[in-house]
Amino acid sequence: MKLLQEMVLKHGKVFPNNVLKVDSFVNHQIDAPLMKAAGDAFFDYFKNKGVTKVLTIEASGIAPALMTALCFGVPMVFAKKTQPSTLKKDTLYETEVFSFTKNVVSRVILSKEYLTSDDKVLIIDDFLANGGAVIGLDDLVKQAGAQTVGVGILIEKSFQDGRKKLEDNGFDVRSLCRIASLDDGKICFENEE
Amino acid sequence: MKLLQEMVLKHGKVFPNNVLKVDSFVNHQIDAPLMKAAGDAFFDYFKNKGVTKVLTIEASGIAPALMTALCFGVPMVFAKKTQPSTLKKDTLYETEVFSFTKNVVSRVILSKEYLTSDDKVLIIDDFLANGGAVIGLDDLVKQAGAQTVGVGILIEKSFQDGRKKLEDNGFDVRSLCRIASLDDGKICFENEE
Repeated sequence: MKLLQEMVLKHGKVFPNNVLKVDSFVNHQIDAPLMKAAGDAFFDYFKNKGVTKVLTIEASGIAPALMTALCFGVPMVFAKKTQPSTLKKDTLYETEVFSFTKNVVSRVILSKEYLTSDDKVLIIDDFLANGGAVIGLDDLVKQAGAQTVGVGILIEKSFQDGRKKLEDNGFDVRSLCRIASLDDGKICFENEE
Repeated sequence: MKLLQEMVLKHGKVFPNNVLKVDSFVNHQIDAPLMKAAGDAFFDYFKNKGVTKVLTIEASGIAPALMTALCFGVPMVFAKKTQPSTLKKDTLYETEVFSFTKNVVSRVILSKEYLTSDDKVLIIDDFLANGGAVIGLDDLVKQAGAQTVGVGILIEKSFQDGRKKLEDNGFDVRSLCRIASLDDGKICFENEE
């Protein structure tokens, strides 16, 4: 997506260890029209997949997932990192998400009420690097007996192995901005059609 | 807002200690058209306040705040409960939010980049009970030398003292659904004009 590439180039900041900071428009301060445009783009790509639910993980996935759900006219649900007092252990699915970037494992949960075996799920997230978050979310989908029909990502670090892992597992992945490298602090995009 | 009242009546569940569970449409599974309608309603009420930024706290405030920011055409920013590796201590504001419901204090942070002394801030959150979250967010606004020009809330527990506290401090509070009581598991709304 041209608009997202332009914003990444203009406002993105590269830190050591291939960290790309986009918190002025994606994951701290959020550009609402950009998220709306991302939702439109995901709808356009996945509109024939029979999506019944949009799934993400708190907190940075909520904005693009919400706008996507608005386009599809289906509910959005987000996996939580903490367990509310109103959710008891036998009423939820849980899995572990490994963040390669932070080198930590987080437990995430989802109420059994909000994913059923009839659901066709579109997973949305802000970043794809090593695929840990998507694999964890898909594990929740599998526990529900539902089916992941697509994965929509705002920014993909194409030099890491997340996309390959997901494609090897049969996922249809649509990333709106694919970064080929961040070497020497310079943001280079993948060549796209 | 009629639509929100209807959804609270239909899908809300009352738990002991005045806990109202609305996680099928507000804070776990999210109804996107409802959030869009809430954003429209906040825009309608606060449109003459010169709002330059919408502020909330992760994670449940993000959906209504994003839709509100889309209406106003201004950025949304959310206070974070964990500190990203790219934010150093001297580059952020921090405050403590006391949750009377959970009886815990959380530290929340906000990058200094995303609130300046010129900002006129609309604070948005999903619930107002004792006002702890709004008071914490306003503390961040004050640290930036900015001004809170309004507070928009989806669901207010009017039988708790949050609204009174905020009004005593001069805040203009707009709640889309005001609950007078949850006694005996029954949801009663405030009479409104």
